Amino acid sequence: MTQAPQHLSDIAPMLADAPGPSNDAVATARAREATLTKPPGALGRLEGISEWLAAWQDRNPPCIDNAQIIVFAGNHGVAARGVSAYPAEVTAQMVANFDAGGAAVNQLARTAGASFKIIPIDLDTPTHDFTQAPAMDEGTFMAAFASGWNALDDGIDLLAIGEMGIANTTSAAAVCHALFGGRADDWTGPGTGVTGDALSAKARVVGDAVALHAEAASGSIDMLRRLGGYELAAMAGAILSARYKHCPVLIDGYVSGAAAAALSVAHPGSLDHTLAAHVSAEPGHRRLLDCLGMTPLLDLEMRLGEASGAALAINIVRAASACHAGMASFADAGVSDKPG
Amino acid sequence: MTQAPQHLSDIAPMLADAPGPSNDAVATARAREATLTKPPGALGRLEGISEWLAAWQDRNPPCIDNAQIIVFAGNHGVAARGVSAYPAEVTAQMVANFDAGGAAVNQLARTAGASFKIIPIDLDTPTHDFTQAPAMDEGTFMAAFASGWNALDDGIDLLAIGEMGIANTTSAAAVCHALFGGRADDWTGPGTGVTGDALSAKARVVGDAVALHAEAASGSIDMLRRLGGYELAAMAGAILSARYKHCPVLIDGYVSGAAAAALSVAHPGSLDHTLAAHVSAEPGHRRLLDCLGMTPLLDLEMRLGEASGAALAINIVRAASACHAGMASFADAGVSDKPG
Repeated sequence: MTQAPQHLSDIAPMLADAPGPSNDAVATARAREATLTKPPGALGRLEGISEWLAAWQDRNPPCIDNAQIIVFAGNHGVAARGVSAYPAEVTAQMVANFDAGGAAVNQLARTAGASFKIIPIDLDTPTHDFTQAPAMDEGTFMAAFASGWNALDDGIDLLAIGEMGIANTTSAAAVCHALFGGRADDWTGPGTGVTGDALSAKARVVGDAVALHAEAASGSIDMLRRLGGYELAAMAGAILSARYKHCPVLIDGYVSGAAAAALSVAHPGSLDHTLAAHVSAEPGHRRLLDCLGMTPLLDLEMRLGEASGAALAINIVRAASACHAGMASFADAGVSDKPG
Repeated sequence: MTQAPQHLSDIAPMLADAPGPSNDAVATARAREATLTKPPGALGRLEGISEWLAAWQDRNPPCIDNAQIIVFAGNHGVAARGVSAYPAEVTAQMVANFDAGGAAVNQLARTAGASFKIIPIDLDTPTHDFTQAPAMDEGTFMAAFASGWNALDDGIDLLAIGEMGIANTTSAAAVCHALFGGRADDWTGPGTGVTGDALSAKARVVGDAVALHAEAASGSIDMLRRLGGYELAAMAGAILSARYKHCPVLIDGYVSGAAAAALSVAHPGSLDHTLAAHVSAEPGHRRLLDCLGMTPLLDLEMRLGEASGAALAINIVRAASACHAGMASFADAGVSDKPG
């Protein structure tokens, strides 16, 4: 089993060395798909999803027997700057709510037939306020990355990731602004419900932070260390770990996407084993998905985070897999596959 | 129990007399939703879905314990005009495939935890070629309508409807063109895979049919008799029946939507207890949803029909219901709901 990277500079080489898709499984999946009792292409994106599953699970037919949802939680020094509608204590309160089964994602996990895990990371020690200093030093960043790397249960065949952390849409906006340019405004949205002057102030925080770190950062992973948070570092670790474990990944919303983007910028193709589960109502998310060239599976105006969109997409992926694996062929079913 | 309408002229009055939403259940649902541990509105469309379920199931919290998928199948006289890529025999062959569990919707029903029923209607006697005469006389239309009306199992709490019928996108295009105007081209698409000259010929068939019946038709339901098919009449009957049984409905794709549209044009509000499950890749469907003012839940480029999109949306609706019913309140969970 591949171990978690020890140093920040190990991550980019591990992205480059990560396993690719199984060409054999793709070829088998394509051959089977063409025989199934439907007009070619009629299942639309479901056909691409089952092929993607085969490619990254390295098996055909693919299946989803052990889906897992993991939510990482962290606190942010930048929360002290009034960028959220809720106080920082809510992160820990919501972790307790996840543990007690009372959050949205608990209900969604049950509906999705998935296991659920919440991993709080050092909630009593928020990251540094990144308008003043890097959010994390290398040690804390790598520890959080390892939390994500080590979070996956053995044998899972689909991972859905998400986060909880008061002020973390500010962090996501800063990461995206740093990685993809544009204006701070382009990337800054209401999050839990920030509007008016407070939203303008949030955008200034984002712009100031990026200006502070732009020159010193040594690449996109280092930018994630400077502007991210524990839960963002952990999600990046989980995504890379899943690649090494042949486990496809559903990425949730804006904050999850920002963490993923740091991997993609560091090494193109690093997100090929992932799908964007949904597009959030947080305006920066659509822009981010465009930058990443990803088309979301769902667009339901959700903006909750905590893996809610990723959890909801699990049954879409399962449905695709079930159609591919379970449908009869034209020959078996005695259905005419020739033009009339 | 309300009986199926006997005459075509009974349908519009029954649409007008149909039960409305439960205002009590809506009020209770809204009050509960506001207490749940998430920023207001953060679950996006899921919040509206749970309120819609409460309104039309007339209970709070709503739940989905008995979802049912019903596919109606019919044959079309217009198939003889070469408007489909597949021969008319495929309708019966696919009915056998549904019965044997080999079609896409069988797999999707399992994933959705829903019961499934296929109802073939007089496959050996196709409707008349509607470029020559009305597809159905009043008796056959009402018999097909009653097949749909009577199809729902007792006690179902969510209905997903769909269809199978070689040549029925031609029928759907004709119904939509007749109901909403525009050009025949606007409403005519590839269906199972018709392209080029054959697609142009299909559009001419649609235009000719509408021209033949436009003047004589006595309203949208009569237009459905003239240009529809057994499975379209049955879906219209099932949708109205569900309204009387306090059962919300997921409408599948273009053909299902065309049948539903005849009800909506006959009496505005007749589809308030329904949601558009998805938007099909068949180009007329998006136009139809715009005419109906409906926003689809899913957009996955599917174009299979046979309730596949509606089946896929069941778990979205179930997830909405589960969040509404199962989430903790701010008070119960000890989470701060006040701005920080």
